[in-house]
Amino acid sequence: MPVNNSDTVALNVFVQMYFCSQNICVWVIIFDKSNSHVTKLTFLYRMFALSINYYNCFLQCIILLHMRYEDEREILYQRIREYLLLFAHDKRRAPELMIMTGRIGWFAIYTALLQAMLILVFMGFVKYDTFYDGTQWNVTRHHGHETPDLRSYYPMFQDIHVMIVIGFGFLMTFLKKYGFSAVGLNLLLTAITIQLAIMVDGIARARGKAITLNIVNIINADFCCGTILISFGAVLGKTSPTQMLLMATLEVIVYTINLYLCIEVLGITDLGGSIVIHTFGAYFGLAFSRTVSRKVNVIEHPNEGSSYVSDIFSMIGTVFLWVYWPSFNGALGNDKGIGRAIINTYLGLAGAVVAAFLTSAWVSRKNQFTMVHIQNATLAGGVAIGSVADLMIQPWGALCIGCTAGLVATLGYIYLQPWLVKKIGLHDSCGVHNLHGMPGLISGVVSIGMSLFASETFYGKDLYVQFPHMSPPLNSSLYLELKGLDLEPLEPGSGRTASQQALCQAVAIFATLVIAILSGALTGLFLSCGGRCEPVDPRHLFSDIPFWELPEDEDGVLKHKDEPGKLFSIQATVPSIGAMKLN
Amino acid sequence: MPVNNSDTVALNVFVQMYFCSQNICVWVIIFDKSNSHVTKLTFLYRMFALSINYYNCFLQCIILLHMRYEDEREILYQRIREYLLLFAHDKRRAPELMIMTGRIGWFAIYTALLQAMLILVFMGFVKYDTFYDGTQWNVTRHHGHETPDLRSYYPMFQDIHVMIVIGFGFLMTFLKKYGFSAVGLNLLLTAITIQLAIMVDGIARARGKAITLNIVNIINADFCCGTILISFGAVLGKTSPTQMLLMATLEVIVYTINLYLCIEVLGITDLGGSIVIHTFGAYFGLAFSRTVSRKVNVIEHPNEGSSYVSDIFSMIGTVFLWVYWPSFNGALGNDKGIGRAIINTYLGLAGAVVAAFLTSAWVSRKNQFTMVHIQNATLAGGVAIGSVADLMIQPWGALCIGCTAGLVATLGYIYLQPWLVKKIGLHDSCGVHNLHGMPGLISGVVSIGMSLFASETFYGKDLYVQFPHMSPPLNSSLYLELKGLDLEPLEPGSGRTASQQALCQAVAIFATLVIAILSGALTGLFLSCGGRCEPVDPRHLFSDIPFWELPEDEDGVLKHKDEPGKLFSIQATVPSIGAMKLN
Amino acid sequence: MPVNNSDTVALNVFVQMYFCSQNICVWVIIFDKSNSHVTKLTFLYRMFALSINYYNCFLQCIILLHMRYEDEREILYQRIREYLLLFAHDKRRAPELMIMTGRIGWFAIYTALLQAMLILVFMGFVKYDTFYDGTQWNVTRHHGHETPDLRSYYPMFQDIHVMIVIGFGFLMTFLKKYGFSAVGLNLLLTAITIQLAIMVDGIARARGKAITLNIVNIINADFCCGTILISFGAVLGKTSPTQMLLMATLEVIVYTINLYLCIEVLGITDLGGSIVIHTFGAYFGLAFSRTVSRKVNVIEHPNEGSSYVSDIFSMIGTVFLWVYWPSFNGALGNDKGIGRAIINTYLGLAGAVVAAFLTSAWVSRKNQFTMVHIQNATLAGGVAIGSVADLMIQPWGALCIGCTAGLVATLGYIYLQPWLVKKIGLHDSCGVHNLHGMPGLISGVVSIGMSLFASETFYGKDLYVQFPHMSPPLNSSLYLELKGLDLEPLEPGSGRTASQQALCQAVAIFATLVIAILSGALTGLFLSCGGRCEPVDPRHLFSDIPFWELPEDEDGVLKHKDEPGKLFSIQATVPSIGAMKLN
Repeated sequence: MPVNNSDTVALNVFVQMYFCSQNICVWVIIFDKSNSHVTKLTFLYRMFALSINYYNCFLQCIILLHMRYEDEREILYQRIREYLLLFAHDKRRAPELMIMTGRIGWFAIYTALLQAMLILVFMGFVKYDTFYDGTQWNVTRHHGHETPDLRSYYPMFQDIHVMIVIGFGFLMTFLKKYGFSAVGLNLLLTAITIQLAIMVDGIARARGKAITLNIVNIINADFCCGTILISFGAVLGKTSPTQMLLMATLEVIVYTINLYLCIEVLGITDLGGSIVIHTFGAYFGLAFSRTVSRKVNVIEHPNEGSSYVSDIFSMIGTVFLWVYWPSFNGALGNDKGIGRAIINTYLGLAGAVVAAFLTSAWVSRKNQFTMVHIQNATLAGGVAIGSVADLMIQPWGALCIGCTAGLVATLGYIYLQPWLVKKIGLHDSCGVHNLHGMPGLISGVVSIGMSLFASETFYGKDLYVQFPHMSPPLNSSLYLELKGLDLEPLEPGSGRTASQQALCQAVAIFATLVIAILSGALTGLFLSCGGRCEPVDPRHLFSDIPFWELPEDEDGVLKHKDEPGKLFSIQATVPSIGAMKLN
Repeated sequence: MPVNNSDTVALNVFVQMYFCSQNICVWVIIFDKSNSHVTKLTFLYRMFALSINYYNCFLQCIILLHMRYEDEREILYQRIREYLLLFAHDKRRAPELMIMTGRIGWFAIYTALLQAMLILVFMGFVKYDTFYDGTQWNVTRHHGHETPDLRSYYPMFQDIHVMIVIGFGFLMTFLKKYGFSAVGLNLLLTAITIQLAIMVDGIARARGKAITLNIVNIINADFCCGTILISFGAVLGKTSPTQMLLMATLEVIVYTINLYLCIEVLGITDLGGSIVIHTFGAYFGLAFSRTVSRKVNVIEHPNEGSSYVSDIFSMIGTVFLWVYWPSFNGALGNDKGIGRAIINTYLGLAGAVVAAFLTSAWVSRKNQFTMVHIQNATLAGGVAIGSVADLMIQPWGALCIGCTAGLVATLGYIYLQPWLVKKIGLHDSCGVHNLHGMPGLISGVVSIGMSLFASETFYGKDLYVQFPHMSPPLNSSLYLELKGLDLEPLEPGSGRTASQQALCQAVAIFATLVIAILSGALTGLFLSCGGRCEPVDPRHLFSDIPFWELPEDEDGVLKHKDEPGKLFSIQATVPSIGAMKLN
Repeated sequence: MPVNNSDTVALNVFVQMYFCSQNICVWVIIFDKSNSHVTKLTFLYRMFALSINYYNCFLQCIILLHMRYEDEREILYQRIREYLLLFAHDKRRAPELMIMTGRIGWFAIYTALLQAMLILVFMGFVKYDTFYDGTQWNVTRHHGHETPDLRSYYPMFQDIHVMIVIGFGFLMTFLKKYGFSAVGLNLLLTAITIQLAIMVDGIARARGKAITLNIVNIINADFCCGTILISFGAVLGKTSPTQMLLMATLEVIVYTINLYLCIEVLGITDLGGSIVIHTFGAYFGLAFSRTVSRKVNVIEHPNEGSSYVSDIFSMIGTVFLWVYWPSFNGALGNDKGIGRAIINTYLGLAGAVVAAFLTSAWVSRKNQFTMVHIQNATLAGGVAIGSVADLMIQPWGALCIGCTAGLVATLGYIYLQPWLVKKIGLHDSCGVHNLHGMPGLISGVVSIGMSLFASETFYGKDLYVQFPHMSPPLNSSLYLELKGLDLEPLEPGSGRTASQQALCQAVAIFATLVIAILSGALTGLFLSCGGRCEPVDPRHLFSDIPFWELPEDEDGVLKHKDEPGKLFSIQATVPSIGAMKLN
């Protein structure tokens, strides 16, 4: 990943974008008031400003690409060299240092800048939540606090954390030559995303105050990681660490915008995040995959495939995701919802396993199982339960949803995925469309139906807790009656009807699809530009070789030698600028 | 697994059996009353009916085998083809569909039927527990509820779930060519068994009401999985997915009968399930192994063996089982019992590790450790503590029991297991007799002793909570005195003495052994019949080849080529009907 | 590991040492009074006595080595044979038994003696804590109990348990030929250490009463395991199971002495144990490594290296450590401290991952990542947060500490570790100096700073709960005022100032370094003596061959053949006694 054949454009855009978001951050913190009217406006502004910023960056990138600021790059290099010379007491080592800077890849530069920026933002705006903040001792003591109880959430948080780092990480080790990257980059993306998510989510949530941290925030940060890692799955093996880093940076912002649109503006029910996490992550990743590697023919690359051992490593991920998924779907539920969420997810996952094995054997020529189905489709039940996890879908409903998802996911692997590659050139390394995309949509559709039939018959008065927007407005007589019942997390709503709720669910699904596909495609276009984002040499797709120092085998020979993909002509290696024109 | 060379007998039996159990289910739900006298009779009837049903099925199977309904098979095929034609709008694709149905294996048919049946049963009879059931909102609000608190049980439930899916799954990956099946079939069996267990256990527990689901039910469903997976271990690599599926289906019923006999009728103490789970699962599996593959000489098959990598995969299972075993033994204990259970299991496991390493090195010719001992015997401590986990065995007692179990298990692997193969042709793939059978019996024997010496000296008044059957009868003066003490889960018992309790423990162990061995042997006989249950070709024992599409290695050659077992004559491949006669 | 070429010296020392510590144990239990003045004296005596005992053993060992009691060894053999003959009813089998005893390795003898001793100590002195102890039923009922609530600690305990057994175990599987030993010996050391730790820590804590067991004790036992396993990492592949067993035995005692010196005498703040666990374990291990294999040139041994698969196995350990580290640092915190500890560790670990990837790519020639950095340096953030986990370091502070630790650890792997081998012959198999040593010191230094600025401004009145020694003395007016505030775990302290607290931190770090290095070096000298501790043949360094029966590969040939280290001359194999002289 050395910097030759690249320029400072991406860096420019990158730095500028983050300075913009910091501006917004400051602006919001200064001007935002707790007045709910202003807040709503502020939110819209914030959303608007971020979007503008995002697309502005994209346009700038396109423009700058055509200008090729060769000089500017030289200036940057010069500055870095001078800076380093300040620290070189021994002047004779200066040339060596200069050579070294010549070798600094964009990855290191981006990462260093991003981490430095994050530390600055945290320094300025992020604090512990009131209860944990010793400096707020007097406040907490006299006025109480609203910090969620750590011990109730912690076991489920750890389960989710295992899913993110170990589940997703090992699930992606199925490629025989990409194990280091799968589990390593998964960890890197997690580490960066949780910081970004805390920042971006904090900016969106903070109502004129500092961003405060408690256990619920870090669960939400982990959920955000899930989204980014689903997108990572779609491009596994086809992108560089630099591209993944930049993708995560951009996706976190769009994810948060969509999350707020769905949850706060539209007020949908989506406890397990099948709409805002799985559907969003999958379609963002797919659109990103389509545009980021559009020059590269990835069909039948000799490196793409699993080995006996890599498939078993992948099963480590599968089983951990399978075991802990009930926590993922239930973690943030209320007292009754959490019980339903866990039972439903437990049964949905069981149904998906049976359906996946059944379909895999049924469709196969020799009635054999295929490992990739078992690794992935067994988990589709958890995704498909997501949005309706805490609703009264009944145990048999959970089984049906799970079975359907397992069936659809397996058929997706067998029929849809090859078709997508052939027809629209959409290559999906991990099959996230089958595991997250379609089951996420199934979950969304079921949630429309469940909202349509939501009534006091099925939920008693808990209806207004389960669907907060269906709760009557403050000071209405029904609200006062409910208040008398002492239902725990009851808050005044807008008296929405069941059909309105169903409509909102439908709108949210549609909005999620549009936002995910558009932003994913734009991000892919942005990150596919030449050496600036350090794309992968097509001969080394699905291989650790470009990014890792690999151990030698016993004869001192590198075992993981790449066979150059026979299908790639040499001119495909570096996309020419001409091909980048917006034709 | 194509259907050629097989007939509908097994399917007949299978379908009929489940319709019978559904009949019973309906019968029980209609006629059962909460009156305790009727309940006891009902239970006996239920047990009787299930047993009759089970053996009836077995007899039918034997009879039908000799009749070989070739015609009936054709009829079934015809029907499936017609059914599929209904969906084939394009009539030209009909022949293709017909060919496809010709290839549908029994596995897919059984699984589809079983899952459909389960969904129907769940639809009719399974609901959320009161607290989680929105339609019961008024009931819960005014009369309270008895749903166990989810958050107290959830962390331990997740630990147990990890043990079942990851612990058992990876522990069985030690065979060098059977990794996919070990971890894959483990997941499949878990997914099916939890549904079956909820159904069968629900039928047994439901007192004239619907089956309700809460966290304790799903912990119990996981315990049932443990039993089935132990039996799976005994026949690992020697049976097909179809056979395992049918075995699970049958074993769940017998397991539940035995569980109720031991826990409800005999009232034994067995918190960690060493008698009802480990002993039952091991001896069922051993008897099953003896009869299911009795025609097949499995001694010294070239596929049976581990590789360096498969042994390390297996250690993943070992360590997870080792770490989480305290949760397995303690999950359902009372406030004080759970503390003792965790400390005892923690120490017992530590003792077993030391004893296993010590014995392995001591007995070995070169003072070397053997991996299979370390993988398994280190866990024997957890099994051996099981039945007495919450009793006052004292920390040193736990250490002694653990060390004994580790020692016995290791010696079992070295001396007993080869002897069993040689003398009675009993092949035990995972050595479940050493890990679950003998340590389970040790635990049972210790529980007899602990019951014999149970008194107020050792437990205070908690004695009557710890041994509920030793609690005095309702309205006796002692009961009223205890009631005044406000001991939490105290319920009136039958004033059983310590010796009676010890006797019950002994009877339970004996009954478990008899039931497990008989039903295991019958199940094995039933499932060993020709192509109907799709038994494994002896040339492909201990191999993934028959069941999985395996990845090709780098030269495009399948790495996991099976060497045909030199010891098998070709006539052993398909057992002839003549050999099946009950001679 | 047969006993030829060894004598009873080590056995002598070993047995004698443990009888001494048992003497002290008895002495303490008889004479110790709850009077605080006496207790302090008693503690000092206990520390003194244990130290004397320890060095006495070492001296004896040196002396005895020169005397070579050949006769005594014969006597021991004779006795063992006679003892076994008692059990041999069939006199004709006696010679066979005698031959068998000739093959018993020291490992089995030591382990058997140690386990027997532990069972005896547990029998005499270890009981359940009051609440779980049925015989204390009357006491608990009428006077209450102080047993910590199991359910609050249990989920975090299980997380820590996973870290110790799975995290450490798999992290060390990176060596291509040492996987069995890494994960197997890790389990063995854990099993032995938790028993030893309960005993030694119990002796130190028990104030004239029996050692009682509750969930906090077993968390502390797991912490002690962490220390021993860190030291194990430093000598991974260079020592035998026997040496590790003896090292653990000795290190537990010194660890406990240092722990009490730091926590009880100096009263430092070190919630995550970066000083008492990580720094101690690392420097003990390094000193041990330097002296135990000082005769052996371990540079560039052909066995030392990873393979593609072993590196991924190692990542299993990394990710589990990474995920669960917040529990490690937070488990024993108070209500507010635990929240801060979890947030800080979560962020610190994220920072370390980013810094590790960044540094690894930056410094590398080709901007590639190196697996060993990712496996280890990503965890340095957790270590570096340790001592200050529950203090008001603020989220950005946690990020900074984490990044610094990740940076320092990666640079340590690249520059410092090769330098240490070359300059002072200090070989560090796992790089524990980079992962535990330096980040532990960073944590210590930060804790000095944080103590220096500790005031009511940052902690409110919780200051006196967070730093118990800064709490005012009993009956002072400030104490009475605090008492009125009802701060939960407030106890009277000594009114220490912030600078005094900082001084104590500094003294504790210095003391830990001195004690760890001295005792580690002495232990290494003691255990490097000839065949008595069964050191590893230098030709088989970093290999499972000497200790495990390995599976054969498909051609029946042992795959893991060791290539003899080309750098070792044959005379290095067995260090001659002459070379042992204290010159």
